[in-house]
Amino acid sequence: MSAKPRVAIVMGSDSDWKVMSAAKEILTEFHVECVARVVSAHRTPEDLGPFAEEMEAAGVCAIIAGAGGAAHLPGMIASYTTLPVIGVPVATNSLNGMDSLLSIVQMPKGIPVATVAIDNATNAALLALRILATGDHKIRAQLIAYRKSIADLSRQKTEKLK
Amino acid sequence: MSAKPRVAIVMGSDSDWKVMSAAKEILTEFHVECVARVVSAHRTPEDLGPFAEEMEAAGVCAIIAGAGGAAHLPGMIASYTTLPVIGVPVATNSLNGMDSLLSIVQMPKGIPVATVAIDNATNAALLALRILATGDHKIRAQLIAYRKSIADLSRQKTEKLK
Amino acid sequence: MSAKPRVAIVMGSDSDWKVMSAAKEILTEFHVECVARVVSAHRTPEDLGPFAEEMEAAGVCAIIAGAGGAAHLPGMIASYTTLPVIGVPVATNSLNGMDSLLSIVQMPKGIPVATVAIDNATNAALLALRILATGDHKIRAQLIAYRKSIADLSRQKTEKLK
Amino acid sequence: MSAKPRVAIVMGSDSDWKVMSAAKEILTEFHVECVARVVSAHRTPEDLGPFAEEMEAAGVCAIIAGAGGAAHLPGMIASYTTLPVIGVPVATNSLNGMDSLLSIVQMPKGIPVATVAIDNATNAALLALRILATGDHKIRAQLIAYRKSIADLSRQKTEKLK
Amino acid sequence: MSAKPRVAIVMGSDSDWKVMSAAKEILTEFHVECVARVVSAHRTPEDLGPFAEEMEAAGVCAIIAGAGGAAHLPGMIASYTTLPVIGVPVATNSLNGMDSLLSIVQMPKGIPVATVAIDNATNAALLALRILATGDHKIRAQLIAYRKSIADLSRQKTEKLK
Amino acid sequence: MSAKPRVAIVMGSDSDWKVMSAAKEILTEFHVECVARVVSAHRTPEDLGPFAEEMEAAGVCAIIAGAGGAAHLPGMIASYTTLPVIGVPVATNSLNGMDSLLSIVQMPKGIPVATVAIDNATNAALLALRILATGDHKIRAQLIAYRKSIADLSRQKTEKLK
Amino acid sequence: MSAKPRVAIVMGSDSDWKVMSAAKEILTEFHVECVARVVSAHRTPEDLGPFAEEMEAAGVCAIIAGAGGAAHLPGMIASYTTLPVIGVPVATNSLNGMDSLLSIVQMPKGIPVATVAIDNATNAALLALRILATGDHKIRAQLIAYRKSIADLSRQKTEKLK
Amino acid sequence: MSAKPRVAIVMGSDSDWKVMSAAKEILTEFHVECVARVVSAHRTPEDLGPFAEEMEAAGVCAIIAGAGGAAHLPGMIASYTTLPVIGVPVATNSLNGMDSLLSIVQMPKGIPVATVAIDNATNAALLALRILATGDHKIRAQLIAYRKSIADLSRQKTEKLK
Repeated sequence: MSAKPRVAIVMGSDSDWKVMSAAKEILTEFHVECVARVVSAHRTPEDLGPFAEEMEAAGVCAIIAGAGGAAHLPGMIASYTTLPVIGVPVATNSLNGMDSLLSIVQMPKGIPVATVAIDNATNAALLALRILATGDHKIRAQLIAYRKSIADLSRQKTEKLK
Repeated sequence: MSAKPRVAIVMGSDSDWKVMSAAKEILTEFHVECVARVVSAHRTPEDLGPFAEEMEAAGVCAIIAGAGGAAHLPGMIASYTTLPVIGVPVATNSLNGMDSLLSIVQMPKGIPVATVAIDNATNAALLALRILATGDHKIRAQLIAYRKSIADLSRQKTEKLK
Repeated sequence: MSAKPRVAIVMGSDSDWKVMSAAKEILTEFHVECVARVVSAHRTPEDLGPFAEEMEAAGVCAIIAGAGGAAHLPGMIASYTTLPVIGVPVATNSLNGMDSLLSIVQMPKGIPVATVAIDNATNAALLALRILATGDHKIRAQLIAYRKSIADLSRQKTEKLK
Repeated sequence: MSAKPRVAIVMGSDSDWKVMSAAKEILTEFHVECVARVVSAHRTPEDLGPFAEEMEAAGVCAIIAGAGGAAHLPGMIASYTTLPVIGVPVATNSLNGMDSLLSIVQMPKGIPVATVAIDNATNAALLALRILATGDHKIRAQLIAYRKSIADLSRQKTEKLK
Repeated sequence: MSAKPRVAIVMGSDSDWKVMSAAKEILTEFHVECVARVVSAHRTPEDLGPFAEEMEAAGVCAIIAGAGGAAHLPGMIASYTTLPVIGVPVATNSLNGMDSLLSIVQMPKGIPVATVAIDNATNAALLALRILATGDHKIRAQLIAYRKSIADLSRQKTEKLK
Repeated sequence: MSAKPRVAIVMGSDSDWKVMSAAKEILTEFHVECVARVVSAHRTPEDLGPFAEEMEAAGVCAIIAGAGGAAHLPGMIASYTTLPVIGVPVATNSLNGMDSLLSIVQMPKGIPVATVAIDNATNAALLALRILATGDHKIRAQLIAYRKSIADLSRQKTEKLK
Repeated sequence: MSAKPRVAIVMGSDSDWKVMSAAKEILTEFHVECVARVVSAHRTPEDLGPFAEEMEAAGVCAIIAGAGGAAHLPGMIASYTTLPVIGVPVATNSLNGMDSLLSIVQMPKGIPVATVAIDNATNAALLALRILATGDHKIRAQLIAYRKSIADLSRQKTEKLK
Repeated sequence: MSAKPRVAIVMGSDSDWKVMSAAKEILTEFHVECVARVVSAHRTPEDLGPFAEEMEAAGVCAIIAGAGGAAHLPGMIASYTTLPVIGVPVATNSLNGMDSLLSIVQMPKGIPVATVAIDNATNAALLALRILATGDHKIRAQLIAYRKSIADLSRQKTEKLK
C-alpha cells in the first residue's frame, strides 16, 4: 500500500474476509486506497484504541468493521474514535446473523454505528464512498456514474426473463 | 432558517417527530443548521426525488430519515441521491420496531442506508456529525469534547448507586 | 405479447424470476395475458411511476410485485397507482424472508399491499385471478374448476400413503 | 342496510370490532355498502361455507376477514369461495400479532389470502376498494381523489414540526 | 386395516407423510390400529366435518393432525369434534416451522389443540397412547415398559462417548 | 375436596394462579373434581416424582402444568409419569411467553407434552375434558353442549356490532 | 466498604441499577462484600482494562456485568480478565432484552460470558456465590440453606391457592 | 480416568457429543481431568439427583451441561446441586437453537445456569477453567497464557488477508 489509505476495513477474524473482501473490491473499483486488518474486540481488546488512533493519524475518513455473533467490534471501534464507523453484521451459523445485527445496530445514545445489511460489505464500501464524497467531487461523480451503471444494468434485465 | 442547512431530517409522518426531534436537539447543541421535513414515501412518492435534489442543491451533507413499519423512506431517499442517508427505525405498536429495523437495514447491494438503533435519533445526529467532521475540524473538536463530556458524566454515575 | 396484458408481474431483480415465474405459469394456465418486468425500487426509482402509469394505460387489473430483503418494490408501486398490488416476499439467505415479509406487509394506513406467503408466487397469481374474476365470469368459472381440481387431487392423495 | 352490499367484513369475535370497524369507516366514507358479521372459524365452523355462499349470492366482490392468534378465519373463508379474501391480523396480547400474521399470510399453494398489516383494517378496506375499482370508474376516481387528499395532508405536516 | 382404528392420523398433504409416518410407526410398535388420511383444510374444507364425524363413528379416541405454514388443519378438526386433537407443526422451508407452530398452538379459548414439537410425530403418537392408556391398562403397561426401555437405552449411551 | 380428583393442576409458583385458575373454573363448571398444587421444578425437584406418583395413585387422568420462562415443569412431570400432561406456557415480562412456549413444546422424542396457547389455561382444562370424555359419555355430552353453547353465543355477537 | 470485596457488580449506566441492585441484595444477604460501579463500554472504553485489573488486584472472584441493547460490557470485561464474568441482559424498551441477551450470550470461542436470564440480577449473584462456594465451605453451607429455604417457601405456596 | 475429575460434562443424548466434545478437548489441553456422561432429563429424570450428588462427592467444581430443544438438563442439574452449572444450548434442526437457548438461559430466580453461546462448548470449558482458577493459581496462569496465545494468533491473521 503506497498511497495513503482513506478507508479502513477491520474484522474480528480472518474467516470474515470471505464476506468483507467485497468491501475492498468496491473501493478498488473506485480507486480508493484502503487498509484491511484483523483486530479482535475480544481476543485483543488492548489493540482497539491503538488501531483507532493509528487510523485517525493515517487520515482515514471511515472505518468499516465486520463481525459476527456477539459482534462488539464495530461498537467498540466507534467508542475509541470520532470517525464514522460502518458496521457489517456477518451471518452466523445458528442465528443467521440476527445476533450480529442486533449486537451492532442497537448501540446506546452517544456512540453511533452506521449499520448495513447482514453480510453486505458491498454496501458498507458504498456508504464509505458516500461519506468521502461529501468532500470529494471526483468520488461524487464516480458514485453518480455507478448509480447510473447499476440502473442501466437493471433496466436490461427484463430481457433475461424468458 | 437563515444559515445554510448542513443536515436534513426527514420523516414519514409528523407523528415521528416525538422520536426524530432528538436529532435536531443534538444538531442544535452542536450549532449545526438543519432542515426538518415530512415526506411520505407512500403518500407522496413523487416528492422523494425532488426532495433529494433540493437537499443536494442546498449543500446538505447527510440526510437523516426516520420511518416505522414497512419503513421505505430511508431506502428510497438513498435511491435518489448519493449523499449518505442515515435511517432511524421508529418503533411500532405491534412489532416494537423490528419491522422498521429490517425494512431499513436490509437494503440490497448498491444502495446503502446507515442504520442506527430503534428510536435512536440522537445517534443519527451524532453519525451525521461524524460525517461532517471528516471535512470540518471544528466539528471534530466538538465531537471529541462531547465524547469527553459523556465519559466524564458516566464516570460520575458510580456515585449515584446508593 | 400480442394480446393486451391483464396482469403485470414485476420484480426487483432477474434473480427473483426463479420464484416469480410460478405466477406466470398459473396465469398462462388460465389463458390470462401478462407482462413481466424487472424494475428495481432502489436502482431505478425514477422508473416506478412511469411503470405504474404504463400498466394502468395498458389496462392491467392487478400488479404482482416480488422483492426480497428491505423489499420496497410492492409498497412503492402501490404508492404510484390505485390498482391492487400483490406483494410476494422473496426469501433471503440470512433472514429466510422474514425481512421481506415485514417490509412488504407492514404498510402504513393509506397504501395497502395484498401480501401473500413467502416465495408463493403461485398464490399471487391466483389472487390476481380472483380479482379479475370479480368482473369476468369466465375466469370465475375457471377458478371454480381449479378449486375442484385441487380438491380432487388432494382427495386422491390418501392413496399415496403406503 | 337497504342497498346491496359490495364488501363483507367478517371477524372471529366481536372483540375484534375495535380494530375492524376502521374498515367500515373507510367504506362508508367511499359510500360503498358493506355487511359486517361475526363468524368464528373455531366456534362455528359449519357456518363458514354458508357465509361464503351467502356473500357470493349477495354479489359481494371482496371479503375482509380479521382474526387473532391462530387466525384461521381468513384462510378458511378463502377456502370456501373464489372471491378475493383480505386478511387482517389482529394483534394479540402475548405475541403482538406475529402469530396472527403468520397464521394468515403463510397460506399454502392454491388458496391465497391478501394479507395487510397487523391491525390495519383501514388498508383492508382500501384494498377492497382497489379491487372494486377494477370494474368501477367512480370508485377509481374516488381512490385517486383519496390518494391526492392524503398526499396534500402529508405535505402540510412539515408545518407541524415546531 | 381389519381391526377398528383407535387413532387417526391426518395431514394436509401427502408430502407431510415423511414427517407423519413416524406416528404410524410408534402406533404399530404398540399394536394400536390407526387410520391415515390426507385431508386438506384449504383444498377440501367441506371434508373436515365429515372426516371428524367418520372418525367419531369409527370409535377413534384421538386424532393426530399435521400441517405446515398457515397450518389450519389441527385447529379446524378440533372445531368439528370433541375428540382430543393432537397437532404436529410440520417445518416449512422459509420460517422453519415457527409459522406452523404458532398457527397450531395459539388457538382461542374454547377449542384446544394438543400441540407437540415441530416435526415430532413420534411424540404425537406417544401422546395419543397416553390418552388411550387412561382407559386401557394394557397400553399403560406398554408405556411404562417403553419408558423403561428408553431410559435403559439412554443409560447405555455414556459408553458411546469415546 | 371430598370426591376423588380426576384432573390435577400444578404450577411452578403461586403467582401463576392468576393464569391457571381459569382451568379450575372450567373444570368446576363441568363438575369435574380437580386438585391444585404448587410444585416448582427448580426449587423442589425432588417433589416432582412423588407428585407424579401421588397423582397416578389418586386416579387422576390428566395433569395440567403451567410455568413461565425456562418452563421445565410440564416436561419434567411428563418424564415422571405416563399420564397425559398438558402444558400451559405462562407469559413472561421480557419475552412475552415465547420462552415459555418453546421450553414446553419443543420436547425431545419419547416424552410428549400437550401444549396449549400462551396463558390459555381454559383450553388446557377443555383438553383435559376431551381426554376424560374418551372414557366418559357424560363428559362427552357436556362437551357437545359446551360447544353448542359457545357456537350460539358466537352467532349472537353479530348483533353487538353497532 | 471496609472489608475486601469478593464480587464486583458493574453496569453500563446508573439506570441499570434498578435491575442490578437485586444482585447486591443477595450478596448482602449472604454477607459477601461487593463493590458496585458504573463503567460504560462505549462511553469510557479506556476504563475497561483498568477496571478489570483493579478488580483482579482487589481479589474479586467474579464480576457481574449488566447492560442493555448492544450490550458489550460483559463481553469486553471478560476480554480484559480471566476472572469469571457473569452477564445480565437488561431489558430494553423496543426489543424487550432480546438484543441484550444475544449481544451478551453469543460470544465467540475464546472469551466466555456466563449469561443469566433477562433482568435476573438475583441469579447473577447466586451464580457468583456458587463460584465462591467452590473454595469456601461456609458459602456452600449458606447456599444449601438458601436452597432449602426457597424449597420450603415453595412448598407452602399450595396453601395460597384458594 | 485415574485422577480425580474436576469438571463434569453431561449431555442429554450421545448425539450432542459432536458439539460437547470440544469442551473435553479444551480441558484436556489444560490438563484438567473431566468426566463425560449421558444423562437425559426426560428419559432418566430419576438419575438427575444421584448424578449431581455423585459429582459433588467426586469433588467436581463445575458441571457443563449441554442439551437441545426444550433443553431442561442444565436447569434441572442446577436444581439438584449448588455447584456452578454451565449450560450449552445445542442447535436444533428447526429453530436453530433459539429454543435451546431460551430453555436454558431464562431460569427463574433462585436457580442460575451460566449460559454460553449456542453450540459453544469450547467457551463452556473456558468458563469452567475460569471458575477453577479462582482457587488455582496454576490454571490462572494457564488461562493468561491461553489468552496471550489467542491474542498472538489473532494478531498474525492480518497477514492472511490477501
